[in-house]
Amino acid sequence: MANMNRQLRLHSRPKGLCAPGDLQLAESPVPELQDGQALAKVKYLSIDPTMRVWMTDIPQYMPPVAIGEVMRAFGFAEVVESRHKDFKKGDRVVGLVGFQDFALIDENAKNSRFQKVPSIPFVSDTAFLGVLGMNGLTAFFGMEIGAPKKGETLVVSAAAGATGSIAGQIGKIHGCRVVGIAGSDEKCEWITKELGFDAAVNYKHADWKKHLAEATPKGIDINFENVGGEVMQEVLSRMNLFGRVVLCGLISGYCSHDPGMASFGNVLVRRLRVQGFIVIDFASRFMEAATEIGKWKMFGKIKDREMIVEGLEKAPDAINMLFEGANIGKLIVKV
Amino acid sequence: MANMNRQLRLHSRPKGLCAPGDLQLAESPVPELQDGQALAKVKYLSIDPTMRVWMTDIPQYMPPVAIGEVMRAFGFAEVVESRHKDFKKGDRVVGLVGFQDFALIDENAKNSRFQKVPSIPFVSDTAFLGVLGMNGLTAFFGMEIGAPKKGETLVVSAAAGATGSIAGQIGKIHGCRVVGIAGSDEKCEWITKELGFDAAVNYKHADWKKHLAEATPKGIDINFENVGGEVMQEVLSRMNLFGRVVLCGLISGYCSHDPGMASFGNVLVRRLRVQGFIVIDFASRFMEAATEIGKWKMFGKIKDREMIVEGLEKAPDAINMLFEGANIGKLIVKV
Repeated sequence: MANMNRQLRLHSRPKGLCAPGDLQLAESPVPELQDGQALAKVKYLSIDPTMRVWMTDIPQYMPPVAIGEVMRAFGFAEVVESRHKDFKKGDRVVGLVGFQDFALIDENAKNSRFQKVPSIPFVSDTAFLGVLGMNGLTAFFGMEIGAPKKGETLVVSAAAGATGSIAGQIGKIHGCRVVGIAGSDEKCEWITKELGFDAAVNYKHADWKKHLAEATPKGIDINFENVGGEVMQEVLSRMNLFGRVVLCGLISGYCSHDPGMASFGNVLVRRLRVQGFIVIDFASRFMEAATEIGKWKMFGKIKDREMIVEGLEKAPDAINMLFEGANIGKLIVKV
Repeated sequence: MANMNRQLRLHSRPKGLCAPGDLQLAESPVPELQDGQALAKVKYLSIDPTMRVWMTDIPQYMPPVAIGEVMRAFGFAEVVESRHKDFKKGDRVVGLVGFQDFALIDENAKNSRFQKVPSIPFVSDTAFLGVLGMNGLTAFFGMEIGAPKKGETLVVSAAAGATGSIAGQIGKIHGCRVVGIAGSDEKCEWITKELGFDAAVNYKHADWKKHLAEATPKGIDINFENVGGEVMQEVLSRMNLFGRVVLCGLISGYCSHDPGMASFGNVLVRRLRVQGFIVIDFASRFMEAATEIGKWKMFGKIKDREMIVEGLEKAPDAINMLFEGANIGKLIVKV
């Protein structure tokens, strides 16, 4: 067993892509184990878009990686020494191992939950980082949120990525027409010929918006969104009534500070639900609601106020009053 | 009964606010009734922000008003003559009366559904356009989507408007801390002193963002959004985990073409549900999902692909590969 542990530590926060030196290699002695600790040799690191967000000092779902800290990463490791009651030498684990040779598993550290994974014939160790790991799980629960129905059209962006490629296949299992958006012809060929997507759109092609329209003749019911930005805008513009947007990632904004994306960033990171609605969709329940509101009004729990403008000829000005903030309460024109 | 019907017709599509001449007054004879038709004298017109959207030639939840057409408007009218089986002289109705003196109710016209309203002591006719009409209903169903829980913080924008003022009061009925955002001190005073909002923020005040922060010390759980733009951005930035954004209106963008708002415009008009999520929220169900995915993989319904980069020192480059589109499938670093 080596006595030294190589680590890649965050030295400076990247602007755009990671530059040489943003992560710096350091060596430190492999830590001596205390009671309640185990040492695991890192075998594989999962590389995920979210890591770039962890490197940026913005509010997010975990604290950003601090300067000087070992770069956070999910990975696969094997226990080589243990004084921890839950792990023994030889155990295969997944967890936040970090960019280093050896990860310390500590039962007192809240944030370092490691999970044992089984050895399954014909299943590679790396599958626990991808299809059977976070990517597969993300695709699974994301598609649950998308609530696919047979015959609906699902569009997946970053469709040749680790999560998107699985999300699209889950869509096929549910009987959807599945269209993937990806950034090369090779990727498009893989998702259609190998994975069974119904169509693929290469967004680097000048006519990609036209191709997307052709691939989604009945519009789009579900958007499994990994990219954001212009790709998402175009998909949103083709969404059908009552469609679902599963906001899984916004990779196009992770390396930049696109202010237009900030709001969707919050929707993602805070796990918000944004629901557009128009009251006429509830027409069958108007009587029920009006009765309830009427009761509240009668008992003084709801008060209202009206501003009445006289004369049909004043109606155009009245419309403008709304936008000039000139009214308080309900604005009405008396004809 | 007058023999002429004054009408305001859409003559040109406004740029920004309605300019004089965008709507032009015309007179035409009151139509002769055919069988199945009734004539109603328009008494009151409801003035709503959505009218400005109807005047713009963009995809929306109803067709835009055509050039030359009578301006569409919801209103209150009284039947003065009838050859329609469902209406008789003296009936009080609400419906899409339009900007005119007389509205024709026609049982063969799909889009002109009129509804009779009762005469209720102490309830004004105009209430059927506001608190007991579309605004009350919109607030009611919007707050149902917002799913308020006792003790949560609700922020309503355009809080002194016809819908916002009711939405906030419904929030109080449900036991929420309710904060309204409005555009004048007078409006702020009305919603706090008269309507019982817990706090109000005047967004025209230079320090309004600070005031919003002070008014929402525990963050925001529900956003009943009527405005969009900068107001919405700021509210979104203070949303708590698993918050709900009820997208009811985006008035700040109706008179302009704010490209940043386009995506939320689609969410509103198409009644989309946008759900942000992070897979770790589903941790308790990982085993269930991994088992399902494992089965799919075993039966060949899901295929995956990995790209493995060798060497810990290559890990920073591997992060960049994601953003350069260099990988197909799952990207992994072998340590």
